[in-house]
Amino acid sequence: MIQAPAPRLLRSLSGETLDRPPIWFMRQAGRFLPEYRALRAKAPDFMAFCKNPEMAAEVTLQPLRRFAFDAAIVFADILLIPEALGQKVWFEAGEGPRLGELPANERLAEQIEASTGRLAYVGETLQRVRAQLEPGRALIGFAGGPWTVGTYMLEGRSSDRSGPRSLAYSDPERIDGLMDVLVEATARYLAMQAAAGAQALKIFESWAEQLPEPLFDRVVVKPHARIVKRLRELGVTLPVIGFPRGAGALVDVYAQAAGTDAVALDVQASAEQGRRIQASKPIQGALDPLLLRAGGPELERRIDEMLQAWGGGPYVFNLGHGILPDTPVEHVQRAVDRVTGASGPGA
Amino acid sequence: MIQAPAPRLLRSLSGETLDRPPIWFMRQAGRFLPEYRALRAKAPDFMAFCKNPEMAAEVTLQPLRRFAFDAAIVFADILLIPEALGQKVWFEAGEGPRLGELPANERLAEQIEASTGRLAYVGETLQRVRAQLEPGRALIGFAGGPWTVGTYMLEGRSSDRSGPRSLAYSDPERIDGLMDVLVEATARYLAMQAAAGAQALKIFESWAEQLPEPLFDRVVVKPHARIVKRLRELGVTLPVIGFPRGAGALVDVYAQAAGTDAVALDVQASAEQGRRIQASKPIQGALDPLLLRAGGPELERRIDEMLQAWGGGPYVFNLGHGILPDTPVEHVQRAVDRVTGASGPGA
Repeated sequence: MIQAPAPRLLRSLSGETLDRPPIWFMRQAGRFLPEYRALRAKAPDFMAFCKNPEMAAEVTLQPLRRFAFDAAIVFADILLIPEALGQKVWFEAGEGPRLGELPANERLAEQIEASTGRLAYVGETLQRVRAQLEPGRALIGFAGGPWTVGTYMLEGRSSDRSGPRSLAYSDPERIDGLMDVLVEATARYLAMQAAAGAQALKIFESWAEQLPEPLFDRVVVKPHARIVKRLRELGVTLPVIGFPRGAGALVDVYAQAAGTDAVALDVQASAEQGRRIQASKPIQGALDPLLLRAGGPELERRIDEMLQAWGGGPYVFNLGHGILPDTPVEHVQRAVDRVTGASGPGA
Repeated sequence: MIQAPAPRLLRSLSGETLDRPPIWFMRQAGRFLPEYRALRAKAPDFMAFCKNPEMAAEVTLQPLRRFAFDAAIVFADILLIPEALGQKVWFEAGEGPRLGELPANERLAEQIEASTGRLAYVGETLQRVRAQLEPGRALIGFAGGPWTVGTYMLEGRSSDRSGPRSLAYSDPERIDGLMDVLVEATARYLAMQAAAGAQALKIFESWAEQLPEPLFDRVVVKPHARIVKRLRELGVTLPVIGFPRGAGALVDVYAQAAGTDAVALDVQASAEQGRRIQASKPIQGALDPLLLRAGGPELERRIDEMLQAWGGGPYVFNLGHGILPDTPVEHVQRAVDRVTGASGPGA
């Protein structure tokens, strides 16, 4: 009996060093693609778009039809959890997310069990995608990190996070209680995604920046470690990628203590830091989306440099932040070609 | 003949490990002090305030009358250089700086020599402060880092720096030319400050975040190294503190290659990173200004933790970012007491 080899992404995440790293891009299902914009135009409300499994599955698959990406990431939003916990969420055109009044931690906690069921549409999207995905390509499920999601819940919108950070000092019980709710809701949500067909999971802690070490430990490292522990308790054995964006030197601390199987790096990770982390686990990252958008000779040079720096260990090629909406499609093609070797350094 | 011991700050910056670190706070001459606000009310225009040596010297000294700070830092602004180079600068109340049209690099370069003379008022402020400063306390001169100042010059205001970062990819000659101008103007400006009585110099690279390693090397590390080299050529032997705020893991790269005598850390430096850098040079930092403002038991706990982590090597106690305007004066007093031992851990 011949078994198909495991998808390249999963081989990297299990610690293998491959002939060339798998590649996918954060926000690859998104506005830089004309076919995404065309479909999105049919569903003016962003939350409704996320909740439509047919449309969400379609945009999840769109980038894989164009590019030789090794993974699809389910189209969803990190603010689906607050809504499922009972806080109103909507998007103002051109202004980003808005959230309604935040229920008390006790009220939120009462909704944890029901929240996973309310998110069943994400499971349905995953099932649809998985059914259409070629076996060599992996499907990634995800959730926002508790701190990041919590800052949106507390501020009602995107913010500089100084409010929640101050609250963590002045009212630690409130913040820790909110983290408790989000840890449990997130673990269950990710377990549901695993059951629906996700083959790897990612925690996006997009606002991990500007946190002093003790606070970073409290609102990022420990909550992530608890999510991973809960996932294992719930029987989920999938690899988990943690992305503490903006954590700087604290990414080393994260890699040692957050319990994720792999660590995603942002644009300012140093070559040395990446190698230091790779000694214990796979890394992912960290091309500058501004460079991808700019293109030019510097783009290929930088890709080669990253392959050189990190290709000798377990590594997943990616951006260090989401792809920008005005990125030329040809630049993405050039980057994918360069990494997959279609016209790479040896060509 | 009995010589007074060198100021504590200078001993730390020369690599000595002291019984307790010197302490000063970024933006200690500023809005959190009622006496600052009172004087500032007399000069509604911020640029005029900076250019009045009598007033600027007074606010430089104010925090030293209240607190046992080991250093004064001259009251000035990082945008005095663009103005001296011929770009209009003004401050909109409550909105921050605004800059007029940016002259071409060639035009700016023609103004370098004259710019230092136009900044003579900063020298006069330093002379006035130095004449009144007790010998145990040191006077710090400073300038903004070329990248940070350059982003303001390019954007005309505070920004997320994605414009200048994109330009660094799409029009490298333009950015590199601007860095050249700012390196030379900054070195001469700092040399003038040294001649006027500054005893240490600091380069504030406030926007060193989100730069990939090659770009960080190009717009931060190399320009700083060139400034330090130029200072030595100009006969300035004072210690230089570099502050690449937000550089994360790249602070290690900076410490190795930027040529400054000491490195200031921001709030997210890890204990381990600080010690790694201390092995080769003194560090400064990195208390969270939000924690100083919040106060509470966590403030003393964190100060003790920092003294524990870094007090065993050459270390200057400071914040990781500027003091916030609404910081209670008592909290600053508590922090200074804790560090100087007036009611410290052993009390």
